[in-house]
Parts: sequence; structure tokens; C-alpha cells
Amino acid sequence: MTSDDGFRGAVSLRPTPEQLAYSFGGHEPLLTVEPGTVVELSTEDCFGGAVRAHEDLPSRVCTFPYLNPVTGPVAVTGAEPGDTLAVHFADISPARDWGVSSTFPHFGALTATHATAMLHEPLEERVWVYEIDSAAGTCRFRARRSGLELDLPLDPMHGTVGVAPAAGETLMSITPAAHGGNMDTPEMRAGTTAYFPVNVPGALLSVGDGHARQGEGEVCGTAVETAMNTVLIVDLIKGRTPAAPRLENDGFLITTGHARPLEDAFRISQHDLVGWTASLLGLDQLDAYQLVSQAGLAPAANVCDTNYTMVAKLPKAVLGSAKAYDGMHERLRDAAARYLAAR
Amino acid sequence: MTSDDGFRGAVSLRPTPEQLAYSFGGHEPLLTVEPGTVVELSTEDCFGGAVRAHEDLPSRVCTFPYLNPVTGPVAVTGAEPGDTLAVHFADISPARDWGVSSTFPHFGALTATHATAMLHEPLEERVWVYEIDSAAGTCRFRARRSGLELDLPLDPMHGTVGVAPAAGETLMSITPAAHGGNMDTPEMRAGTTAYFPVNVPGALLSVGDGHARQGEGEVCGTAVETAMNTVLIVDLIKGRTPAAPRLENDGFLITTGHARPLEDAFRISQHDLVGWTASLLGLDQLDAYQLVSQAGLAPAANVCDTNYTMVAKLPKAVLGSAKAYDGMHERLRDAAARYLAAR
Amino acid sequence: MTSDDGFRGAVSLRPTPEQLAYSFGGHEPLLTVEPGTVVELSTEDCFGGAVRAHEDLPSRVCTFPYLNPVTGPVAVTGAEPGDTLAVHFADISPARDWGVSSTFPHFGALTATHATAMLHEPLEERVWVYEIDSAAGTCRFRARRSGLELDLPLDPMHGTVGVAPAAGETLMSITPAAHGGNMDTPEMRAGTTAYFPVNVPGALLSVGDGHARQGEGEVCGTAVETAMNTVLIVDLIKGRTPAAPRLENDGFLITTGHARPLEDAFRISQHDLVGWTASLLGLDQLDAYQLVSQAGLAPAANVCDTNYTMVAKLPKAVLGSAKAYDGMHERLRDAAARYLAAR
Amino acid sequence: MTSDDGFRGAVSLRPTPEQLAYSFGGHEPLLTVEPGTVVELSTEDCFGGAVRAHEDLPSRVCTFPYLNPVTGPVAVTGAEPGDTLAVHFADISPARDWGVSSTFPHFGALTATHATAMLHEPLEERVWVYEIDSAAGTCRFRARRSGLELDLPLDPMHGTVGVAPAAGETLMSITPAAHGGNMDTPEMRAGTTAYFPVNVPGALLSVGDGHARQGEGEVCGTAVETAMNTVLIVDLIKGRTPAAPRLENDGFLITTGHARPLEDAFRISQHDLVGWTASLLGLDQLDAYQLVSQAGLAPAANVCDTNYTMVAKLPKAVLGSAKAYDGMHERLRDAAARYLAAR
Repeated sequence: MTSDDGFRGAVSLRPTPEQLAYSFGGHEPLLTVEPGTVVELSTEDCFGGAVRAHEDLPSRVCTFPYLNPVTGPVAVTGAEPGDTLAVHFADISPARDWGVSSTFPHFGALTATHATAMLHEPLEERVWVYEIDSAAGTCRFRARRSGLELDLPLDPMHGTVGVAPAAGETLMSITPAAHGGNMDTPEMRAGTTAYFPVNVPGALLSVGDGHARQGEGEVCGTAVETAMNTVLIVDLIKGRTPAAPRLENDGFLITTGHARPLEDAFRISQHDLVGWTASLLGLDQLDAYQLVSQAGLAPAANVCDTNYTMVAKLPKAVLGSAKAYDGMHERLRDAAARYLAAR
Repeated sequence: MTSDDGFRGAVSLRPTPEQLAYSFGGHEPLLTVEPGTVVELSTEDCFGGAVRAHEDLPSRVCTFPYLNPVTGPVAVTGAEPGDTLAVHFADISPARDWGVSSTFPHFGALTATHATAMLHEPLEERVWVYEIDSAAGTCRFRARRSGLELDLPLDPMHGTVGVAPAAGETLMSITPAAHGGNMDTPEMRAGTTAYFPVNVPGALLSVGDGHARQGEGEVCGTAVETAMNTVLIVDLIKGRTPAAPRLENDGFLITTGHARPLEDAFRISQHDLVGWTASLLGLDQLDAYQLVSQAGLAPAANVCDTNYTMVAKLPKAVLGSAKAYDGMHERLRDAAARYLAAR
Repeated sequence: MTSDDGFRGAVSLRPTPEQLAYSFGGHEPLLTVEPGTVVELSTEDCFGGAVRAHEDLPSRVCTFPYLNPVTGPVAVTGAEPGDTLAVHFADISPARDWGVSSTFPHFGALTATHATAMLHEPLEERVWVYEIDSAAGTCRFRARRSGLELDLPLDPMHGTVGVAPAAGETLMSITPAAHGGNMDTPEMRAGTTAYFPVNVPGALLSVGDGHARQGEGEVCGTAVETAMNTVLIVDLIKGRTPAAPRLENDGFLITTGHARPLEDAFRISQHDLVGWTASLLGLDQLDAYQLVSQAGLAPAANVCDTNYTMVAKLPKAVLGSAKAYDGMHERLRDAAARYLAAR
Repeated sequence: MTSDDGFRGAVSLRPTPEQLAYSFGGHEPLLTVEPGTVVELSTEDCFGGAVRAHEDLPSRVCTFPYLNPVTGPVAVTGAEPGDTLAVHFADISPARDWGVSSTFPHFGALTATHATAMLHEPLEERVWVYEIDSAAGTCRFRARRSGLELDLPLDPMHGTVGVAPAAGETLMSITPAAHGGNMDTPEMRAGTTAYFPVNVPGALLSVGDGHARQGEGEVCGTAVETAMNTVLIVDLIKGRTPAAPRLENDGFLITTGHARPLEDAFRISQHDLVGWTASLLGLDQLDAYQLVSQAGLAPAANVCDTNYTMVAKLPKAVLGSAKAYDGMHERLRDAAARYLAAR
């Protein structure tokens, strides 16, 4: 990044419905930007905006595999396999004053699915419409079978962020894996920097699946789904690449694991956090294993998608003066603040 | 409870080494108390105090199955199968100024184990000794292969709390299951009320496995293990029983699931939280599923024991004026405060 | 064994209903025998004989935990922890001309269960009554919702065979684990020798859960359940003990793994087969791993019980002249033949 | 098929090394054939032929992702999404008089892997070279650390057979899933008809990964890998599509499940076998569940690949006169016999 403000200009990406993609891999870039560029982009919700009312059952108004549209891909100049793409989320704001959630036949954590195949009929398919009040910072839950209403805190995030996969694969946008994708972790909020392995020239970043908020595990299979206006900055770390996406915010180093069974997702995330900690603190592997064991957090992200996602978190307080990626997160955060202030 | 202070006297239980138990079930009570009684008890660490220095490798100084000793059982007068035993932790204080942690051959989340059987040799068995400074509220990590030292916040808890199992079973104290046992969740700290199913007359509560602190997942297999002095109050809820232990503190309703694979532990905990939420808020099951999906938290507890443990947490803010178990937690919390103040 | 016939007399064990046990561990022996003794015993079916007709729904006529009764325990003189108990099944014959099978609420592989907890209502509970024709060697399936009838080959076996568990545990008879128990493998038929770890003096063998036949996986949760008259011979191998039950017949070495998830049950069984093969053929671990990888079979046993069971099988053709346990299986098989011929 | 012999001519497909593919999806057809056509094709081994001797360690001589090459794709005229592609294997013959197997770093069932992430170093990487004697029907195992040699029966099969995936995905050839792919079941031998869902026009069949033989589970991660000359016949079933590949031979209906954890692979395969059985015998779902539970077999296929594979088998004896897909298997089998006889 070269400007005094720490970012290299801003570009906008507001795809038409026809430009939306439904996979990672298999697409030419919609946009190519230099490292350090701010990208302002819009995303559609996971239902393509087709679920707006109680009667809009997803299985009727959506058509597989046209679910979970993503905006992108954005190519980043100079990104080569073996590099790391850094993506800092400066702002994630609901683009609508409503969001929706739903059950979906044979999808979710507490239902038989196509993978956890059983002889049960699907649970009832039901839609909930949430009122989003961005000024108040709330989204309003309304029960469908009682009069209960209550406000939940708005906590906007993107469920789906990733790059083109390795090995020439093209994966549905609903799959989380080593390339990122549909990780569905509430940690992917504004103020977070995400680090992705670069698998193809340009990295090919795509973003979608905005959530006004989401519980850990995304138990019923969907969050408070809504369209978003999002501001992010991209940057590059040359010559190093993580095994799976890493995240960083002001308080935590965060690693992610995407696999089934859930203990393998846990193991992947913890294994990477042990390695990252060892590297930053100059510890041998077992000393880092010990430190992570006592200091780490381990919330579920999603337990409903085609892979499950666990995240592992280490408080940066234990890092002392060590900084991940030479302070990339802090630089991008500060650049984001200047950009937003100047906007 | 009948006294003005909300508790019915206090008794002490400081077992000799010979009185320590290594199972839930299969033991006569060491003590019988009325509901509402404060119990002050001491617990030994999971190694029976035998690991005190780097050279005290657990596999040498401990003898299977004499691991993870528990204090108890304590019988509660009037407890009958189908009831709920409430246990409020008023205080959990390290009884020593040191704690230990270790790897253990073929035990932990990032190693081959007897269940996840592989052809690898065990990882190195290594002991870490922590300095506990209760006044400062810290425990000091010292790396073994570098000079790194750092203080972690003290956050005392019990890994093992439970009652006699159902169906006449006797289970090793290292197993977490529907009766509680070695759940190893950091949520079991002072200020928490735990609710257990009563499976046998008297319930037969036992407590052990104090941790000066523990990361979520207990990745390496052990926490900062230390002896504890603990103050708790027991009480009874007649005629209702949870499927597995529930916890409550001032901020959260918490359910627990104990199973393998980890997604089943997750499912059990979420299933119970959905049911509990539905019952407290008068919601139908799907409305409660939706609310938990958006408002819940889902951290790992242990991913190393004979069953894995996940917890599910709902912020009590969403409950409005509804109170779990008619305010049992608040009553026990207040009684505990009065007892500690008067002590 | 000392007689010319290779067995040391025969005793009979036909428990009254009150003598039936529902656990491994926690019971005094009904009978004590010398190694080499033939035991003729009777077993009740897993429903205690209470399900006899379509209207006898198990959830109504059976009372938890009084399910899956076992006959025993039988103590074997001289058995000490660290030894191996050998049990050869000489004959397993249905004691009735009918058997039953059923679905059971929240039990089975293709239904939500208490562990794989979901929001579905249970599948329909339905009973099937089979006609057993021992002379013809068939059991007759009759569909409940159509007129289809067909004969399946009789293949009698015991689902539940085991010894008292280690570590002083008492486990429900429906649980399979390292002590054996409810393994539900069709390999446990007449002509098979099973080897169990001895965990307590006398070993304390119990047997139950006869199946007129069973598919691999016991998918719906029950087999063709029936009472059995069974002839077995017990013997001892001093100073060696397997990690989990092993089986042997004229064609195969068979190891068993009992765990969740199913891949851990697979891993345990394969790990033991690799070790057994290495030991018998004088191979290093990796050479044995390779041989088992190319020559082994790996059928599911049960995917419905509290632990799942996989078995691993190696054709004895690859063993050349090597014999497991110095030919114990062959000796017991021959003794059994002489006993049955003389009976 | 229209000829008197039941097949519509024969074509040959012998790709150059440059024509080999490493994915399902993402490739134009090498060949387009009519339904009923015999295809004679050659396949390279999973190492691309680069592992020929003990010193050819796969991690050195192979380059990810150029592993597990497949021959194809072959387009079948008239195949449309929603149809079923039938592929009958008439002959699978080793093209060499040697095969190889190996361990591979962090790959296999009894080792830490990238998914089951652990802190262990990889197991030793070791290559075994087998002598294949097609006339004798054997392949010769030679231990590497002892003098043991023994002949195993030749049982040639293809580990990898599949079609282009649904949803526009491109998947590495080492992944088994609903499109088939690297299922690694020993059931894929000559005499078997495999049925695949058609996801794209032409279906786009590819075949590779020949095994001179393979144990169930493919425990060490590789079988006796060799190049093959294979004869197959393709045909179409219009307007019906299975959820995942089904197989049929003269003795059994066979379904497949591809997932993690292994119990989900089991569930998928059993669920499909229940549905198939219900449909062929006119049973309701629970009656079919019962029949499969008592009559079915359930061997592991692979427990090492990116998804695990279980198969479920029902003896065709229980079908009476019912025939799957109107006798497609029998017709293709007979056509294959005529073709081979006339060749």
C-alpha cells in the first residue's frame, strides 16, 4: 500500500443478478485490483432475495444449486499460489431493513439431512422475517406460533468469504473448506482481517451470505439473512500461505477448521493455532500446545453445512509484542479507519 | 431452605487420601445433608497430587485407574429418581500456590489415542508447573524449551462434578455423560448453579478435578490442575429432571452434551437448550429452534475425554422476566453471598 | 484341559428370570468352573420374552433399564487380570420356534436417537414376528404392510458376550466396549472362539441376546431376537490380554473395535489386527499394515448401540503354519465336536 | 442397444499421458458414444506409473494434485440430468506384471492426516512392489523388513469410476461423493454393473485407479496399484436417477455412501438400500428397513479418502422375481459375455 492513508484508492463492485456466482472457482474475475485497494461491494442474501415473507418457502422459491450467491471474484494483482491474501472488513452494513431466516427440508443440525440420512420426514419448513433497525442496532425476532417478540443485537457478518480452491477444483458456494467459502463464523465481522491461501493467480476473492447476526453453530441452518453493503481492503503477503483461513481482530488470533466429523474441524483449527502460536512466540510445538490448551477459546461456527466449521481463538494478550504478519491487521485496520473517516 | 439467610447450616468434607473415589456410582455416601446445606469441601488434583515437578511424568507416578479422584459422594436427603439436584458453587479457591499440566501418552485432542487408534508412537510426555498467585489472580506459564514466561488469568473451576449414574452403572470419574462427571467445561466456576438428574436416592454428588484455569476443548488433555477448597450449596427440585446437566449463571442458561462424535455432543446440548427455551418462553419447538439459532453460543468444553463435551449457551437477556426453575439460581446465589459474607 | 476328550466335564446354567442380569460388572458369579469346562446355558431374548406379538410394543412391555438380560456371570477358576479368557461356541440353537424384531423409539441407525439428538418425532414402533424352522434352517420374514413373506437362512449368534469391565466399572448390558458386551456381530456364531481380556479375578463371563440371524450393522436396532440354548467351552490363556475382544474361526482372525464415531471403531479393530498379524508372522508394524490393507475384510457389526462396533478380518490362509494362541481355537473346536458327538 | 449381440459396436480409448485427467468435471469429452457401446480403455495407476521401485517414494516422484489420473471423460449420447448411466464392467485385466502399494505421509486410516490433524510426524513412507501373475491369478506380497513372501488372490477392480458432478462442481479425482469418483470399493470388479446419476448432458464417465486387489477399508491408503486394460459397456436408463452410485452383480444389490464421519457413509448407503428394496418389493419403508436389517451386509470400502465410503448389500435371493432396472444388469452381463466370446 502506498498512499499516505494506507490504502490505494477505492473501487465499487455492485453485481447485477446475472453476475452473481454460485461457486468458488470456475469464474473469470469481475474486477482486478492492486493490493491495498478498498473495495466497496454489495451482496445479495443467501436466498437471492427471493424469500421475503412467511409464504416464501425456500424450497419453493429457490432452485438448487442457485443458492448462496457470492459477489466476485475479485482478482488481486500479483497474487500467486503460495501467497496469502489479506482481507480486512472495514464495514458490513445491512442493505435492507429486513432479514429472513428459515428451516429448510433436511438441512440443519437438529434434523436428518442428506448426509445424516434417516427415515424421518423433514421438519416443517418455516420462515421468520426480522425487522432490522440499523440505527438502534437491533433485529427483531417474532415468533410464528406465539406473540413473543424480542430484539436481538445487530452483529453483521459475512457467512461466505473465500478464494478459488486449490487443485483446479470448483466448489459450490455453500461448502466451507481450506479455501474459505461458507464458513459461517460470527467472527467474520467488521474489524476483522481474514487471511486466505492463494491457490490461483489473482487469488479470486468472493464474498456473500450476509448475516444481520448469527448464533454459534448456525443450528437451524440459516442466520438472519440479508443483503449487505460492505467495505473491505485487500492486501498481499508474499511467499507464505496458511493451510486454511486465519482471522485476526484487535483481541484475538483465530484459526478455522472445516471438516466432518466436528472433532476433525476442531483438530484442524487447534493444530493451526498451535503452529501459529509456536511461530509467533518462538515456542516448540509442545510448549505452544500447552499454552493454547490453557489460554484458547473454541466456539463452533457452523454445524450444518457440507463441512462443519470450528474456530480456535488465542487472546493476543499472550503474544506480548509479537505481531502476526508483521502487523498487517493493525495497518489495514488503521487504513480502514482513515478511509471510512474520509468517505 | 429455611434459614433467614437462605441456607441450612454448613458442613465440611475433607476426605483422607483413602476416602477419595475414582468413580461415579458404586460408593456409599461419605456425608448426608439436607437440601439447602452449605458444603465446604476439599478436592485433590487429577493426579492425586503425585505430579509436582517436571520429572514426575504422570504415566510413571500415577496408576490407572487411580486417576481423577473425586470427593464424595454426598447424599442429599429426599432426593429421588426423577428429581433435579441443584448445586451452586459459591467459591472455588486453589488450595496450593502451584498447579501442573502435562501431556499424557495417547491422550489429548491432537494425538492418536486408544479410541482414535493409530500407528504413531505417543507424543513426548512433558510436565509444566504453574505458579498460582491467588492474590494477583494469575497463574504463570513457563515454557519448557524456551525462556518464555507469562501470566494467565486465574479462573478456577471444577472439571468433574456429577451424581451416581442411571441404570445401576458405575463409571470411571474420567468419563463425562448424562450424570455429569468429567465434563471439563470452564463454565463450572464460582457463581454457577449446576442442575443434575437424580438417578438414585440421595443423588450422590461428587466433585473433583480442580483447574486453576482451562482453555475451551482442554486440547492437550489436562488443564492447570490443582487442589481446591470449594464452597457449594445443594438444593432439590422435585418431580422434574433434565436429560443431562444444565448450568446457569447470572448471564446465561447453559446446557451440556456428552458424546462422540463431537457433533452429537453439540446436538444433545442444542436439543436441550431448544427444549428449555421453549418451555421458559412458551414457544413451540421450531420457534425456540430459531431463537437459539440466532442468539446462542456454542463453545467446546472438552475434546479429549472418553466422551466429548459441548455446551450451548443462551443469554438470559432474551428470557425477559422468565426464570429457570422458579429462580433457584438467584436464590442460591444470594444465599451463597450471605454465607460467604458471614464466614 | 485334561480329559481325553479335551474338555473337563459339563455344567448347566439355566437362570430363573430373577437371576438374569442387566449389566457387566456388579454381580456375584452364578457359577464357578474350571478352565476346560463345557457350559450349557440358556438365554432369554433381549426383550426378556415380553414381546411376542405385533401389539407387544417394546416401549410398553419392557421397562428401562431391564432390557437385554444376560445369563451369568460365570467365574473361571484361575482367571486373573492380565489373562485372556477363551470362549468357544460349540452350539447356539434357538429355544423357540419364533423370534421377534422391532423398531424402538429413538433407537437404530436411520433415526434420530438420544445421542444423535434431533427435533423429529420417533419413527413408528413396529413389531415383526418371525417363524423359526430349525429343521429347515430358516426364519420367515412377514411384511406388516403387505403380503410379502420370505425365508431367510437361520444363522444363530449371540449379540452380547463379555466379561466384567476394567477399572471397577459396571456397564449396562446394551453397551459394547473393551470388555465385550453388546457387540452384535454376526461373527459370534457356533464354531467361533472369542478371546476376552480378564479384568477381575474369575473373568465373570455373561452371555445373552440371541439372534436367529442379524444383518451387518443391525440397522433398525434389533435382530431376529430369540431365546437360545447354547453350549460353550471356556479356557484360559495366562499372562497375555487383548485390548478388546478377538474372535477366531476356521477361516479368519477377527478383531473388534467399539467406539464412536464409526471410524474410531474401525481404527481400533484394524490397529489390533495389524498388531496381531505382526506378532503371528514376525512382521514389523508397517509390513503388517500393508498386508492387512490388501488382505483384510471390514464389515460393520452394529451401528445402533451406545458404542458402534466394526470388525476386521484376516483370512487365516495368509498365516501359513502360524497359529493364534498356540492353536487354542483348533483345540477347543475339536473338543467341542467330541462333546457334541458324545452328548 | 440394438444389435443381436446386445451391444452397439466397440470403441477404444487409450489416452496419452497428456490426456489423463485429475478431476471429475471441468473436461471436454475425449470420446462420445451411443448407449450400448462397448468401450475398451486403458488406465494408468494412481501414481501415474511413477512408483516402480522401493526408492520411488510417492511424495518425491509424484506432484500434487497430479495424482490418481483417470481415463475419460466419455460422453454418452442422450444422457441428460435426471437419467441414470449404467456401466457394466466386462473385464478388468492388469496391464503389467507388477503393482505397487505404499504408505504416504499423513494419508491412511491409522495415521494422523490433514483432516484428523495431530502433532505426530508422518509414519515412514514405504513402497511395496507386488509381482502380478495373471495366469496364476495371484499377486505376491513381499515384506520389506523380513523375508516373508506370500501370494494373495488377484481380484482386479477400479477404485475410481464416476461422472461429472452436479451443481457445476469440479472435484479432484481422489474424492468419492455422490457422483462416484474414488469410491475404492472392491465390489467394482468385472461382472458388476454400476449405476450413476447423470448430472450433465453426456454424463461424462471417467475411470481409473486400477487395483490388482484391495482389502476392505483400504487401510494404509493404497491398494495393489496397477495399470489396467478394461472392457465396459455403457447404457442409459431414462428419467430416473439414484442419489449416489448403485452397483449390482449376479448376487447382490449394492448401494454406496460417501461421507464423513463413517456412520454417515453407512447411513447414506443403508438409506438408499432401504428405498431400493422398498421400491423393488412393493414394501413400505419400515418393512424394507426391517428386511435390510436382517438380510443385509455392510462392508467398508475406503476409510482413507477425502470422504469415506461404506457399501450396503442385499442378496438378490430375497428379491424373488423382481429385477432392478428391468433387468439391465442381466442384459449387459449377457452382452458382455457375447462380446468377450467374439473378441
